[in-house]
Amino acid sequence: MRRLRFPAGLVAGKLVRDVTIEYDAGLITAVVVGEPTDGTALSGIVAASFVNVHSHAFHRVLRGKTHAQGGDFWSWRDLMYRVAGELYPETYRRLAAGVFAEMLGAGITAVGEFHYLHHAMGGQGYSDPNAMALSLAKAAGDAGIRLTLIDACYLSSDVKGSPLRPEQSRFGDGSAAAWADRVRDLAAAVADEPHVRLGVAAHSVRAVPAKDLPSIRGVADELDVPIHVHVSEQPAENEACLAEHGITPVELLVETGVLGPRSTAIHATHLTDRDIELVAASGAGVCLCPTTERDLADGLGRAEDLVAGGIPLSLGTDSNAVVDMFEEARGIELHDRLRTGKRGVHGAASLLDAATRHGATALDWPEIGSLQPGNAADFIVLDPGSFALTGADSLDAVLFAATRNDVTDVYVGGTQTVAHGRHYGGILPETLGGGLAAVAE
Amino acid sequence: MRRLRFPAGLVAGKLVRDVTIEYDAGLITAVVVGEPTDGTALSGIVAASFVNVHSHAFHRVLRGKTHAQGGDFWSWRDLMYRVAGELYPETYRRLAAGVFAEMLGAGITAVGEFHYLHHAMGGQGYSDPNAMALSLAKAAGDAGIRLTLIDACYLSSDVKGSPLRPEQSRFGDGSAAAWADRVRDLAAAVADEPHVRLGVAAHSVRAVPAKDLPSIRGVADELDVPIHVHVSEQPAENEACLAEHGITPVELLVETGVLGPRSTAIHATHLTDRDIELVAASGAGVCLCPTTERDLADGLGRAEDLVAGGIPLSLGTDSNAVVDMFEEARGIELHDRLRTGKRGVHGAASLLDAATRHGATALDWPEIGSLQPGNAADFIVLDPGSFALTGADSLDAVLFAATRNDVTDVYVGGTQTVAHGRHYGGILPETLGGGLAAVAE
Repeated sequence: MRRLRFPAGLVAGKLVRDVTIEYDAGLITAVVVGEPTDGTALSGIVAASFVNVHSHAFHRVLRGKTHAQGGDFWSWRDLMYRVAGELYPETYRRLAAGVFAEMLGAGITAVGEFHYLHHAMGGQGYSDPNAMALSLAKAAGDAGIRLTLIDACYLSSDVKGSPLRPEQSRFGDGSAAAWADRVRDLAAAVADEPHVRLGVAAHSVRAVPAKDLPSIRGVADELDVPIHVHVSEQPAENEACLAEHGITPVELLVETGVLGPRSTAIHATHLTDRDIELVAASGAGVCLCPTTERDLADGLGRAEDLVAGGIPLSLGTDSNAVVDMFEEARGIELHDRLRTGKRGVHGAASLLDAATRHGATALDWPEIGSLQPGNAADFIVLDPGSFALTGADSLDAVLFAATRNDVTDVYVGGTQTVAHGRHYGGILPETLGGGLAAVAE
Repeated sequence: MRRLRFPAGLVAGKLVRDVTIEYDAGLITAVVVGEPTDGTALSGIVAASFVNVHSHAFHRVLRGKTHAQGGDFWSWRDLMYRVAGELYPETYRRLAAGVFAEMLGAGITAVGEFHYLHHAMGGQGYSDPNAMALSLAKAAGDAGIRLTLIDACYLSSDVKGSPLRPEQSRFGDGSAAAWADRVRDLAAAVADEPHVRLGVAAHSVRAVPAKDLPSIRGVADELDVPIHVHVSEQPAENEACLAEHGITPVELLVETGVLGPRSTAIHATHLTDRDIELVAASGAGVCLCPTTERDLADGLGRAEDLVAGGIPLSLGTDSNAVVDMFEEARGIELHDRLRTGKRGVHGAASLLDAATRHGATALDWPEIGSLQPGNAADFIVLDPGSFALTGADSLDAVLFAATRNDVTDVYVGGTQTVAHGRHYGGILPETLGGGLAAVAE
């Protein structure tokens, strides 16, 4: 049993003084607020770790490299496909381990990898058809992060169900049934990995023909895992879906059961009022990715209306051009300010929930995301003496002023993974550099 | 003479290898690119320092403390007035020194303080009527930053010329003539301070009656200094100005000569096409403050159209809720993406110009903002091995990925002011904390 004592902490939606965390065998056994204890005294503000619901680790290669070309979301996607074409199981593992280490350094202890780089170029399977997925699982182990491996079905290149384009060939399993069989094998392969849980996804209404959508939900139910789906990130997706099916992507996904109580809709930027009602009624959550959405010129989503509908919001770093959950969390509020001209739409406690416990639900790690007995001992420490945080005397102040650089220490299941802002276990930025270089070679 | 050799640098709008900076008596004497020299070898990416065109140092007190209340720009302003009411010359100096140190730590070596806290509460003058302004000058000296002290005329509470409200009383000099006399005294008082230059401002069309606007420009011409003005930050200002004068704030400011070749319009968020033509024709620049504009729910400005009109853009941290010129610089582009759905509107080199040399022009420090012989030896060093910058191999990548935390070293006129991310000379975050605490007392 260990007992760590901090001068301050973020507990139950407030910045409070004197927080002691007691943990044993990876689990929190007590959280004492307001009275100094005899635990080991440390400095800093202790808080629950972050949960990053939506990541494509390999997009990290593109950080800062897609700006000069102009264009829009779709031309950016062509660049992204080029990088996707250059990844192999071993380089994918090295790259992802570096990216996961970057996430840990930023206080993220669980990540949802939305994975669709399934096969070799041309679509041929590797000798193990799950080699690429298992590279992600190994990378998470290398880095020491919890992973929800969200295996995405990707069969078509548009809402009409057209065949995959050559640069998309490695995403495809040929049929929903073949995808399901591979996912069942993957479930068995990771069943004994304590740091890995499974999820499934329909990539989007573009990538899975309408007739196959119900079977994706079926596999999620069969395996009892979360189901994620990209929804209405760009107006063009809505237009194409309306033209083909006469209904919006949300309507299609609700009708086919993809959006339901175990579901998370990613982005959900361009929704109608009716879409929002449907998502709310379905029991699904929504994962916003504000830094990516502004990077990709997606537009301003309707976070205020989603919350008003009772929809839980979670957050993802998505393209990993930015890895900073503070920035994502306040991005919900700041984007709503730009859209509405109003301030203070979202309280800091609810923004923090989006970055922590709502994400934990979306990724099937319900035991993380808040500091309470029985939960996993996943927590982070912030430096209150940084220039950014000097003077911060409330949760609001911390949430709106902190950056990833203020995270000095990170614990995963009671194991310290980051100390003084440096990642333990040899996964340093240089390793990330090696991973990036390996892709470029 | 000193000669420092860096493995990389941002020079003339590009990330280049092997940069040597030679300087003597505070001035750059040579910049050698591409060939290793016998200078002292350092690590990192060397770059010109940042210029922060628009700051209200005392707003730093409000960082993270104005979010829970909801409201809008105008209710935020009421909170800000409350802080303004609690500042006195000595606390103002301590606070501003801490804030200026924070700016130096973020790589800013020149700041424009848009100053209107002129007098004691109730509007009585201090025994030295420039005591508050001189507190800023002393604070800049304490911290080691270059200051353009922009003394703002503030006479009325609305566009109709109504008297100041009680909480605005200390901003007012009673008349434009009295303001001008005080500013002439201030010019004499700082004339021998090498780190201080003067500017003047009309606070806004709300705060200076139309009849007095020409005289503000007159003082700028008389003293040969820059003139700044807040313009169209909120739609309500436009509406009130149209109702009172039948023309937009920009039209009024151009007609009265406030916007001209020596002018910088701050924000300029809600402009008409005609406004943009007029600003362009006047020769004025525009200073955007993207992180403040999203914080205050101002809305998305028209940066693309300003640039298309040939208007030079500069940048300010304004409310100092965020002090990160990388974030401001990419904010120009990211806000345009949210507005237009297009990417790559602004090249990285022009975004960097906004954060450096265009700002230097706006603040009358033309000798900083780019690495070239004859310029002041103001430069910064970035850590290319941080998680943020690992893999960054172009100016684009640096500009879109870096944060203030990647600035490790800062030189002002050849004097190292920040080393390893810590500010020299005793102005540490703790001093900022002391300054903040002094205000709260």
